[in-house]
Amino acid sequence: MSQPAYDPDNVFAKILRGELPSHKLYEDGGTFALMDIMPRGDGHCLVIPKKPSRNILDVEPDDLAAVMVTTQKLARAVVKAFGADGVTIQQFNEPAGGQVVFHLHVHIIPRFDGVKLRPHTGEMADQGELAANAEKIRAALAEM
Amino acid sequence: MSQPAYDPDNVFAKILRGELPSHKLYEDGGTFALMDIMPRGDGHCLVIPKKPSRNILDVEPDDLAAVMVTTQKLARAVVKAFGADGVTIQQFNEPAGGQVVFHLHVHIIPRFDGVKLRPHTGEMADQGELAANAEKIRAALAEM
Repeated sequence: MSQPAYDPDNVFAKILRGELPSHKLYEDGGTFALMDIMPRGDGHCLVIPKKPSRNILDVEPDDLAAVMVTTQKLARAVVKAFGADGVTIQQFNEPAGGQVVFHLHVHIIPRFDGVKLRPHTGEMADQGELAANAEKIRAALAEM
Repeated sequence: MSQPAYDPDNVFAKILRGELPSHKLYEDGGTFALMDIMPRGDGHCLVIPKKPSRNILDVEPDDLAAVMVTTQKLARAVVKAFGADGVTIQQFNEPAGGQVVFHLHVHIIPRFDGVKLRPHTGEMADQGELAANAEKIRAALAEM
């Protein structure tokens, strides 16, 4: 497989440039966290690096490490925010690997005993619900 | 959720202590990579930290970062070893999150266009096949 070039017009690049809105959860020098607008579970959120990288195959190791340290913060925050029983982390690379947006991103999905992941339908969640869940996660982060 | 204590008798702890065999792929100061013996796809492998941690909720950030840098090496290696079209990364936390062995581990699954993940049946793969796939991954790592 030859790795395709980074496309600067992907949705996450546009969000990072402020050209599209997002439910922002957290930001530091190298990383940015936001709500997934097509959640596979309540509170499903994402962490992305600020620097362009297509996925795990081309990202600089230091940038990947920073993304994962932020992913841990968010994993702890969603457990606290929603009283989750567990957390599922997913990260997809290339279309065969499940990737849809071609800027590296890590999925953080709060999990509850007996509740399966919802299928990826491509339907957007209610914006008010996303905003309310984002507020819960930001509050949990602020207390940590 | 209160995080249960680390159980030093889990399978990965035993492998790290040399009390159980594994198809070892890679090792450095802080991390260890091995074949998943119940693969959800050909070449499915795992990266674990050497230091005890239950999952992403309790691991030291530096140890998580080291695990992910090794995960990237393995992701690149499986693409090279099997000519994969993509890679799926999964990391499960607590039973509700899909975790079965309670030592932090990251799944690296080579993916191929049109081939779905196999279900987690709990059945062990053929040891000869695991050994052959391990050899391919070690060879790819050696060339990188």
